[in-house]
Amino acid sequence: KLTSMGFYSPRVFLRHIFSSQEAGVWPIWMEDETGRLDQTVVGNKDFSVTSLPVHLTVSPAAERLRYILGDDEETMPTPTLFTEMDTLQQEGDELEWKESARWVKFEEKVEEGGERWSKPHVSTLSLHSLFELRTCLQTGTVLLDLEGYSLPQIVDDIIERQIEEGLIGPELRDKISFVLLRKHRHQTKKPIHRSLADLGKSGSGVSEWSIFISIHLYTHCLAQSRSMNDIADTPSTDQLKNKFMKKIPRDAEASNVLVGEVDFLEKPFVAFVRLSQATTLGGLTEVPVPTRFLFVLLGPLGKAKSYNEIGRAIATLMVDDLFSDVAYKARDREDLIAGIDEFLDEVIVLPPGEWDPKIRIEPPKKIPSADQRKSVFNLNELGQMNGTAGGGGPLGEELAYTGRFCGGLFLDIKRKLPWYPSDFYEGFHIQSISAVLFIYLGCITNAITFGGLLGDATDNYQVHLANFMSTFLGTALAGTVFCLFSGQPLIILSSTGPILIFEKLLYEFSKNNGIDYMELRLWIGIHSCVQCLFLVAMDASYIIKYMTRFTEEGFSSLISFIFISDAIKKMVGSFKYYPINTDFKPDYVTAYKCECLAPDTINLVHPKAENSALSSQELIAFENYFTLDWTQLSKKECVKYGGSLVGKSCKYVPDLALMSFILFFGTYTMTVTLKKFKFSRYFPTKLRKLISDFSIFMSIMTFVGLDMLIGLQTPKLIVPTEFKPTRADRGWFVMPFGKNPWWVYLASFVPALLVTILIFMDQQISAVIVNRKENKLKKGCGYHLDLIWVGFLMAACSFMGLPWYVAATVISIAHIDSLKMESESSAPGEQPQFLGVREQRLTGILVFVLTGVSIFLAPILQFIPMPVLYGVFLYMGVASLSGIQFWDRIKLIMMPAKHQPDFSYLRHVPLRRVHLFTLLQIVCLAVLWILKSTFLAIIFPVMILGLMVIRKMLDMVFSQHDLAWLDDILPEKEKKKKEDEKKNTKKEKKKGKGGNDSEDVSVLVA
Amino acid sequence: KLTSMGFYSPRVFLRHIFSSQEAGVWPIWMEDETGRLDQTVVGNKDFSVTSLPVHLTVSPAAERLRYILGDDEETMPTPTLFTEMDTLQQEGDELEWKESARWVKFEEKVEEGGERWSKPHVSTLSLHSLFELRTCLQTGTVLLDLEGYSLPQIVDDIIERQIEEGLIGPELRDKISFVLLRKHRHQTKKPIHRSLADLGKSGSGVSEWSIFISIHLYTHCLAQSRSMNDIADTPSTDQLKNKFMKKIPRDAEASNVLVGEVDFLEKPFVAFVRLSQATTLGGLTEVPVPTRFLFVLLGPLGKAKSYNEIGRAIATLMVDDLFSDVAYKARDREDLIAGIDEFLDEVIVLPPGEWDPKIRIEPPKKIPSADQRKSVFNLNELGQMNGTAGGGGPLGEELAYTGRFCGGLFLDIKRKLPWYPSDFYEGFHIQSISAVLFIYLGCITNAITFGGLLGDATDNYQVHLANFMSTFLGTALAGTVFCLFSGQPLIILSSTGPILIFEKLLYEFSKNNGIDYMELRLWIGIHSCVQCLFLVAMDASYIIKYMTRFTEEGFSSLISFIFISDAIKKMVGSFKYYPINTDFKPDYVTAYKCECLAPDTINLVHPKAENSALSSQELIAFENYFTLDWTQLSKKECVKYGGSLVGKSCKYVPDLALMSFILFFGTYTMTVTLKKFKFSRYFPTKLRKLISDFSIFMSIMTFVGLDMLIGLQTPKLIVPTEFKPTRADRGWFVMPFGKNPWWVYLASFVPALLVTILIFMDQQISAVIVNRKENKLKKGCGYHLDLIWVGFLMAACSFMGLPWYVAATVISIAHIDSLKMESESSAPGEQPQFLGVREQRLTGILVFVLTGVSIFLAPILQFIPMPVLYGVFLYMGVASLSGIQFWDRIKLIMMPAKHQPDFSYLRHVPLRRVHLFTLLQIVCLAVLWILKSTFLAIIFPVMILGLMVIRKMLDMVFSQHDLAWLDDILPEKEKKKKEDEKKNTKKEKKKGKGGNDSEDVSVLVA
Repeated sequence: KLTSMGFYSPRVFLRHIFSSQEAGVWPIWMEDETGRLDQTVVGNKDFSVTSLPVHLTVSPAAERLRYILGDDEETMPTPTLFTEMDTLQQEGDELEWKESARWVKFEEKVEEGGERWSKPHVSTLSLHSLFELRTCLQTGTVLLDLEGYSLPQIVDDIIERQIEEGLIGPELRDKISFVLLRKHRHQTKKPIHRSLADLGKSGSGVSEWSIFISIHLYTHCLAQSRSMNDIADTPSTDQLKNKFMKKIPRDAEASNVLVGEVDFLEKPFVAFVRLSQATTLGGLTEVPVPTRFLFVLLGPLGKAKSYNEIGRAIATLMVDDLFSDVAYKARDREDLIAGIDEFLDEVIVLPPGEWDPKIRIEPPKKIPSADQRKSVFNLNELGQMNGTAGGGGPLGEELAYTGRFCGGLFLDIKRKLPWYPSDFYEGFHIQSISAVLFIYLGCITNAITFGGLLGDATDNYQVHLANFMSTFLGTALAGTVFCLFSGQPLIILSSTGPILIFEKLLYEFSKNNGIDYMELRLWIGIHSCVQCLFLVAMDASYIIKYMTRFTEEGFSSLISFIFISDAIKKMVGSFKYYPINTDFKPDYVTAYKCECLAPDTINLVHPKAENSALSSQELIAFENYFTLDWTQLSKKECVKYGGSLVGKSCKYVPDLALMSFILFFGTYTMTVTLKKFKFSRYFPTKLRKLISDFSIFMSIMTFVGLDMLIGLQTPKLIVPTEFKPTRADRGWFVMPFGKNPWWVYLASFVPALLVTILIFMDQQISAVIVNRKENKLKKGCGYHLDLIWVGFLMAACSFMGLPWYVAATVISIAHIDSLKMESESSAPGEQPQFLGVREQRLTGILVFVLTGVSIFLAPILQFIPMPVLYGVFLYMGVASLSGIQFWDRIKLIMMPAKHQPDFSYLRHVPLRRVHLFTLLQIVCLAVLWILKSTFLAIIFPVMILGLMVIRKMLDMVFSQHDLAWLDDILPEKEKKKKEDEKKNTKKEKKKGKGGNDSEDVSVLVA
Repeated sequence: KLTSMGFYSPRVFLRHIFSSQEAGVWPIWMEDETGRLDQTVVGNKDFSVTSLPVHLTVSPAAERLRYILGDDEETMPTPTLFTEMDTLQQEGDELEWKESARWVKFEEKVEEGGERWSKPHVSTLSLHSLFELRTCLQTGTVLLDLEGYSLPQIVDDIIERQIEEGLIGPELRDKISFVLLRKHRHQTKKPIHRSLADLGKSGSGVSEWSIFISIHLYTHCLAQSRSMNDIADTPSTDQLKNKFMKKIPRDAEASNVLVGEVDFLEKPFVAFVRLSQATTLGGLTEVPVPTRFLFVLLGPLGKAKSYNEIGRAIATLMVDDLFSDVAYKARDREDLIAGIDEFLDEVIVLPPGEWDPKIRIEPPKKIPSADQRKSVFNLNELGQMNGTAGGGGPLGEELAYTGRFCGGLFLDIKRKLPWYPSDFYEGFHIQSISAVLFIYLGCITNAITFGGLLGDATDNYQVHLANFMSTFLGTALAGTVFCLFSGQPLIILSSTGPILIFEKLLYEFSKNNGIDYMELRLWIGIHSCVQCLFLVAMDASYIIKYMTRFTEEGFSSLISFIFISDAIKKMVGSFKYYPINTDFKPDYVTAYKCECLAPDTINLVHPKAENSALSSQELIAFENYFTLDWTQLSKKECVKYGGSLVGKSCKYVPDLALMSFILFFGTYTMTVTLKKFKFSRYFPTKLRKLISDFSIFMSIMTFVGLDMLIGLQTPKLIVPTEFKPTRADRGWFVMPFGKNPWWVYLASFVPALLVTILIFMDQQISAVIVNRKENKLKKGCGYHLDLIWVGFLMAACSFMGLPWYVAATVISIAHIDSLKMESESSAPGEQPQFLGVREQRLTGILVFVLTGVSIFLAPILQFIPMPVLYGVFLYMGVASLSGIQFWDRIKLIMMPAKHQPDFSYLRHVPLRRVHLFTLLQIVCLAVLWILKSTFLAIIFPVMILGLMVIRKMLDMVFSQHDLAWLDDILPEKEKKKKEDEKKNTKKEKKKGKGGNDSEDVSVLVA
């Protein structure tokens, strides 16, 4: 019969053939009132949940399933099923059940001769076997809720029923029972040492001997009564020892599939049993999991392969989420068959000419959730799902403008306070240790390098590379305070590039204008702190909401580039610091020397007329000229005493530059390689993860070791041994008054404003990146709370003449990455799920305490060569760059279209628009980079704001659809609503004409 | 109805439902006389062809197909089909057909908004759509062999037929015709520059404007008569310019699928048309390929997705090898439906819970051949296939023992002679250039390094690193002769490690016993040459046949290890040659110098009593003592004139060792990286292949450039400027008589025997590796012919005092690799097939001519630093190691079982046996390596023979089944037959009991 639409549903015709009692034919494509499609049936799996109409029209199989599944959904979720398939094998002359495959979610097969488990793979079935299985269930015995306590009793019950139904003659009872109660041999790994013991015995010899024994046993066995079966009632030690158990969820139950061919049957013996209680049936299952389902298929000789395929089909069905629900709740045979029909409706078909069935398909990274499939039958769940799917993410809510004084701040505190205790106890985890070590190394590298740069930039007013103690102490102090009290303790405070640039420019300005730098800086700090408090009080952080991926990426790539360029600059610098004598000829080694010659005596004796008084230096030289042995002086001493260095080798330092390069490049390469090691095939997963987590540490250790081994005097971390202010003319605290005129105190408001913008942007962009929804943070964020602490710390640091600290993007991302949690026990083949980040304050605090303690680690730290640290620096820059979409898009430019990865935005935005967007971003960054290098760098913070303006202008170049894909517009409720309305009116218009826009933008924007 | 077996075939019940005229039900599992299974039906695709019984029992659908396909199989192969699917789209208010997907073999979809082709992927269909398609073909119009010359006429015919059949009313004629003749818009790439022109226009603005225009055009269009359709009869320029054409085979024909929803239909309008002649129907198809098939599906509004799926289903069917055959040869509707049923029988089903249908499945590397599927219907092909599948490969035949004098040699010549002309003209290909360059570089590196080692080993009797001219000339001479006349011109002759070791030991022996080395060597060469001739005459090469993978791998890994260890030794050596002063303190540069002091004068003036006559050196020193400026002397001069070097820096050479290391490691790393670049996603495939092919050359150039840029005096290739024998006491030719007693001439027979074994093994193992069946060589091999030339060249080289040359395994493999051919025009997504190797003599000859000419390239070559060459050396060793199974198995040891790749032997051999085999191999190699380093190295060739003995002993540890998988036993007819017999008897025994061994070893061994 044809429906009005002219199409059959396969479900419909299946029903048509097999169950004559239900003769109705249902049209499957029906429209609801709104004119939308009912797409609940087969073959159309990419309908979005939201597009489901309220009134579903379903087939009778689905109707049946809805009835049995829909009722008690909330009361009891069905347990996970572990399925084991055993086949009847002739081992010597003895029959036994040998495990041939198992399923937790995916199939694992016992390799024919390999005595090993295959990799978990997607079960590829043949349509044939599914139909055969369907016939089996229709004709065979189905026993639901059988009271079973032991295998022999169950087997008896099955056979009894078959005899009752006239399917087998009573004369077969003993034979079938004998076969079904044979011993089960499971696939367990033989340890290597046992196999070495086998060495002496030749393969064939062993099997012959065992055949002899087993024949003997077999005859002996037959002589005994049939109660002497091989099945014990208690789990064996093999079962209990099986390590596979940890891959199976605790509440799991087993379903056992037994298939085999025997010589005494003329037609198949089929039984499907569901026990009323899950029962451990001795050695039936490989693991000590109680059995709930039993499927038996014995058939005449000659069709082992076909039986095997049917067994695989039922096993695959049993682990299917939907069918296992059906199996648990089925009331009769028809329910099971409806389950198969529903399964058939949803199967995915690969054409035989395009795929080789022998290929084992690797489990996919993500599988459509079973809930979505079930929801078709379960209408009450639908609304719920819609609710959660429509959630706009936490960002919008937390950045809402309250309009009250300090409204946001109070909300932040209110939000974070309940989590405060858990922020500590959740930190106790082994993973924290590696995170602390990693971030600690990043922090001190950062502190040392930025400290050094800052010292260079400000003539050591603040800190100096050679006296990094105060940097360490400052970092430790600020970081600990922030981690203890901030809203987002995952953020790591540090000196950052933009601040450095600002300070450098400020110092030059004050030096040129005769203003005392430290006092000016103190006042800027105070002003800035007050401004921060003002911003917090006004809930100003809400504007962050308008920041899109474009701005974020621009900022964070810029920071990454600063990291990379600093590392390379430093490395190139060492080639200048240790120049290589490229003209050196080994044979003419005799020509190279560097001698310290005494100063020109004539010059000394006859000082020039205008310099009548001798300079102190000349005086020393004069005194030394006759007393010193000039040839014994070192280079520095020679210069100090006014001598001159003469010789071809004076300008050059051998080996050190090249050695530095080897250390630098080696550290970088090794870190990258070890990081990637997580994805290699070697060694167990845990070890690989450990190596990957500690890659930076291991690389540092390796190259420190190499450096010590070779023993060259590469530039090392110079660690102070005494604790004192950097410059003698600088005390412990900066005094606020006295050195500058009074108006400077007020005028410093203006540069303070720039600093405030800078700090605000730097801090909040990092926070936005950390709080990205990909990170699945649960404890909420605290933009206002963060900002107030940054403000306070700024004032404090200014008083002590320490650098200013603000959220460090790169290190904060690294912190998040090192604390990511993944689900542990997943079915074999299933990808571990990313669960979220270990949100706590402990790691941050420990990092900064360690940083503070580092001043006592001086004896150890002084072995670390600087090039090794530069290598780590380069790695951090590159690693943080590789995580952002912008970088992916840059790489796309160099790829031919056909090799490009399947990014979702590429499916929806024309490639040339993607490239255009990327190019515009590159241009913006290039301009920023150039500006950063000029005197305009002082308005750098304002330029970041400028990025937001440019982004706004992009609205004119790109359509909202393209931007939605490329720029991940943050949810903004009003705008969204407005757009929705616009879309809806548009859609209605279109629907009148064709309504062919089911994959419309609205789904994306929503 | 149930068959006696209790199972339905899906084909059976499909037929049962849909075609009531054929009511028969067929049992699908029937046994033939031998008791074997008839496995020709569904779901059981891994039956081997050989196991097919002669009498097939098939279903009526298959019967039907066999009838139509079986008849004229040989007369006319059907053309390849290109399928394009166009969907009806509303562009503005105008209707148009928009290309939405295409198939050559795999599906390429037009991404929704991306305006791009998706990657080719396997079409995943739903069972639903296939059943719907089946209904479509049953109810719709099927026009076979329609005389069609233009689209309007075809459309008219279809509509006419539909009206005749009463499927549509005549009032729909114009509307349907109008819709079907709308313009076809194909997906063609917009160039980037055009998109930049779009920049100014905002996305939404453009579309609104175009909507306005199109509405205007639409109304205009409607006003015109229906003959004003958008279809032209001649191919458009867009079609002709389409570059996709080169992906489609020449003889291809198109099938067009048109699906769409319209508002005026109440039930679907379906038509399947086959034209009697393929005709170009204007702009219907994206490429100028004539259309043969047309599938039209128009239906009521609201089911676009369903229609789309049906369209995809028919398109996928059309590119299926089997169904397209059916479509070409179908006599009526029923044939087509039988084709679908057959297709359904073979589909592969993925369970919905284990796979996400949204994932695009990458095309597999290998697809089961269509012939195998067709053969079910085509019995006469079966025997043929069996014949080719059973072929034992060329190796066995060519190494057969003829028993006649020089029998093998004559056969070799007979076999190679017909190919001789093609050996030259087939070399003219662009690929040859890169091969020549690559191998040339490998050759000179090899020549220089082994030449250097040989010179060191024999006190420069033969060649010296500093005078490598003779090495080059010798290599050129021997190589050219061999490439011109040998049996396997792909083999590259060179000095090899084993020969080097032998010569070294021989030299030490003769020095210690006062025998003239060069004369002894000449006699050994003569003896060895005679012995080689004897071996050739006796067809002795046939024993190579008994050499298994075990021996091959042992030998070639040993050679690889020698390469690697030599490269590293040389590198470490440069740290000794240029010692680094690790105590250097930059500040104390003044303390480092190296002065040349004049010799002790007292000693000179008062020579000791026993040395009354002054030695010549002392005399010079004495003379110079007063005339020379000792401080101006170079290191060498100082030593020469008897001065002594005093100073801290004398022993050290700065920078050179580290620079050497950077060059060495950099060259290696860069080569590896560039080689891998072939598999990256960047740049077009051709460019990537080019970069990969020239990776060694590019690395060498880069690091030579870097070296020149830095300008350090790293050790360079020292190139001679004059042409003379190495030592003054050695003439151009070695004289055979005069320096040694007569018995030495005879006794040298014994060492010659060792050399002969060595040469024989070295040469023939390399030849076996080159001739491996994986390489698909077509021109046969010539083991005997090769050996005779090696023998002749040995004698010639001995006369001239040049090194002995023999096949170099590593370079020969590299030669083969660089000449591999792959199929060029393959369907998108299809893996290019490895076609074979460009077998010719030209590349080899050119390599050696270039090597000879290299002595004139001296000015260029002298810029190449030695460490760069060592890096290339290291790469060659590592690369040749990574190609062998032994190395794969070593890596397996470090992998947990679940991460191991899916090697076929792992599926069949227990892991511990695999590890055991690997460990035994490692032990053998370790023993060989140790022996090689002791005085026993002289019997090294005998040890390689020993490997064969050890392999024989492995038969006692491993079963033949395991060895068949791990050790690739070469076909040996008698043995095979015997085993087959044994297996058969065994099998018969087993069959009596269970017969469950269908995947038995016999298939493997056969």
